[in-house]
Amino acid sequence: MKILILGGDGYLGWPTALYFSARDHEVYILDNFVKKKIELENGIKNLIHQLPLLERVKLWNSNHKNQIKSFTCDLLNHRLLYELLDEIKPEVIIHYAEQPSAPYSMKGREACIFTQYNNVIGNLNLLFGMKKYCPDAHLIKLGTMGEYGTPNIDIEEGWLDIEHNGRKDRLLYPKKPGSFYHLSKVHDSNNIEFACRIWDIKCTDLNQGVVYGINTKEIGEDERLATSFHYDEIFGTVINRFVTQASLGMDLTIYGEGTQERGYLNINDTMKCVELSVLNPAQKGEFRVFNQYTETFTINDISNKVLQASKDLKINIKAKNIDNPRIEQQNHYYNPTNKSLLNLGLKHIALDKALLVDLIKKIKKYSNNVLKDTLNPKIKWKK
Amino acid sequence: MKILILGGDGYLGWPTALYFSARDHEVYILDNFVKKKIELENGIKNLIHQLPLLERVKLWNSNHKNQIKSFTCDLLNHRLLYELLDEIKPEVIIHYAEQPSAPYSMKGREACIFTQYNNVIGNLNLLFGMKKYCPDAHLIKLGTMGEYGTPNIDIEEGWLDIEHNGRKDRLLYPKKPGSFYHLSKVHDSNNIEFACRIWDIKCTDLNQGVVYGINTKEIGEDERLATSFHYDEIFGTVINRFVTQASLGMDLTIYGEGTQERGYLNINDTMKCVELSVLNPAQKGEFRVFNQYTETFTINDISNKVLQASKDLKINIKAKNIDNPRIEQQNHYYNPTNKSLLNLGLKHIALDKALLVDLIKKIKKYSNNVLKDTLNPKIKWKK
Repeated sequence: MKILILGGDGYLGWPTALYFSARDHEVYILDNFVKKKIELENGIKNLIHQLPLLERVKLWNSNHKNQIKSFTCDLLNHRLLYELLDEIKPEVIIHYAEQPSAPYSMKGREACIFTQYNNVIGNLNLLFGMKKYCPDAHLIKLGTMGEYGTPNIDIEEGWLDIEHNGRKDRLLYPKKPGSFYHLSKVHDSNNIEFACRIWDIKCTDLNQGVVYGINTKEIGEDERLATSFHYDEIFGTVINRFVTQASLGMDLTIYGEGTQERGYLNINDTMKCVELSVLNPAQKGEFRVFNQYTETFTINDISNKVLQASKDLKINIKAKNIDNPRIEQQNHYYNPTNKSLLNLGLKHIALDKALLVDLIKKIKKYSNNVLKDTLNPKIKWKK
Repeated sequence: MKILILGGDGYLGWPTALYFSARDHEVYILDNFVKKKIELENGIKNLIHQLPLLERVKLWNSNHKNQIKSFTCDLLNHRLLYELLDEIKPEVIIHYAEQPSAPYSMKGREACIFTQYNNVIGNLNLLFGMKKYCPDAHLIKLGTMGEYGTPNIDIEEGWLDIEHNGRKDRLLYPKKPGSFYHLSKVHDSNNIEFACRIWDIKCTDLNQGVVYGINTKEIGEDERLATSFHYDEIFGTVINRFVTQASLGMDLTIYGEGTQERGYLNINDTMKCVELSVLNPAQKGEFRVFNQYTETFTINDISNKVLQASKDLKINIKAKNIDNPRIEQQNHYYNPTNKSLLNLGLKHIALDKALLVDLIKKIKKYSNNVLKDTLNPKIKWKK
């Protein structure tokens, strides 16, 4: 299939490109490199010195008959986007091309507005472009489990059957997002549902949990193909941050009480989930939502697992609670479902000790690259 | 009280300014005149040749000790907005300053994106400005009943008590808006609810029905103080459009079957509802939603009422059904509540024959101003 990956330079976009290329799909990448710009502005770096995208693509292509094609394009530039959609006529569009950091979106007015502008308007340009140039393409949009927040009821997949005063309807699941970034994804979901309703666009909205891991089969041991792994307060998600701290022999820093529970998944499972969505597309006019996570943990669960793995590696560290920079419920009910992807056959990778030991060992090789002061949260939800 | 009215040049913003000024409040107006620009771009005009805002303000001030102060400011210009919030330190902010037309937002990519950009980003700038310069101000934000769409369950006020799988929570009412404009208001509501939650902003979100009427007590018979009354396909709401057609002896054009039901209110009741909200503010951190309409009608109900009033005036017209340019449910359940404003003491003006007769007579005086071809819908939800 012709698969266009928006944000193909990112942590997940890049391995997704390799994953589908290795499976004989025709892969096209778009990126605007804005994440690299945010890295420079904030003094953060990804763990492994990466080759620039174009060199990585060249390297991959030199070893594969099936060539990846890469374009520099900002979704905010609708003219160029339209041209590319018209030229490529993709059958599948996998849309990772959004500012992905909750803390960044909470830095202040400018970062908040950049996040909502970039994400919401870029996504609108894409919808208008699809309507015009590839109305039958299947949009696979990356959302987040964070759109739901932590309601006191079971979390369903995007929609909720509601009975109220003796009458029933199936409506979009009411959201309670916890940052301006998460809000941007809620806005996107609302805009896309409308586009499906009136223009017959087909969309799978993947409400993804927190991803961890550094490697996929296609990247393998060739670090010249490495993806962008972050451990910092801005782009570093909690498991990736904890294993980095462990690899440096630093104590794990738990935000608040650590009782916050979330859904998680391995980076390799992201690939599988996206593939299952590609192979089982939404129908015309359907706005379908899958909750894309495989396991739920509290922060304390994770820190205990990382501490146990560290012990095996003779790394003598502990966990410490620090002031929670976020405003979020610490003790809450959490029962999301992920049955759609399970029903499509997803078998998941468990976050077990062996995996964490491997991960810490792998990261340890790059210890010298770590900018330690970027591990500590400086961005607060309320100043 | 110090009341800042954003969008103070508009159909509702202007009479709101006069209403509060007449009641001895200290009134400040902000406007960026973008609606006038949209009028020029689309070849539409409001019914009455208005004096420019600054001249109207001067005229009002020449007859009143209590002076209105007016500023030209775009909410997208956060620096100027911040300066003004800091200088004025408003106690109440009434926010009408958004692109208010659903059809305009459906014209194409550019108009859609202008609508969401202008409304959502302008509103975010306001929230950041309030946090910094007037965190105790009461934000009264104009939303729309159209945010809800037409669900098959009763429409509550912004929030819904949900019982699901034996557990309960109170969550934002799930929305099903019918245009990119209505979506922009949903995005605003979500952003504001979050700002209330994390920054202790106080907000009353007024989900307003469709407003009709041309005059308020303060405008009186002085047409130099007239507000912007629209009858066209872009800014003209259905009752205002029907009475304009009647005043010209034209048949009433019903979009589709005319069975679509909505909430309506008289322009004078908008003033009262906003005043009730001002006098009974939300609490710190509270995101309160009032459904601001007084009566519900189908389009056919309204057309029948207008036809009866026309008959009294010896205007011999009929109603005709035309293709619905919108994508919307034609036969649907509709049972919204508006108990919050009723509980605060709202007494409403009924849309009766006498009122419609007066309205048609008033509009008839300006018949020569009407651009007839702007009455017909040319913007379609799906091309």
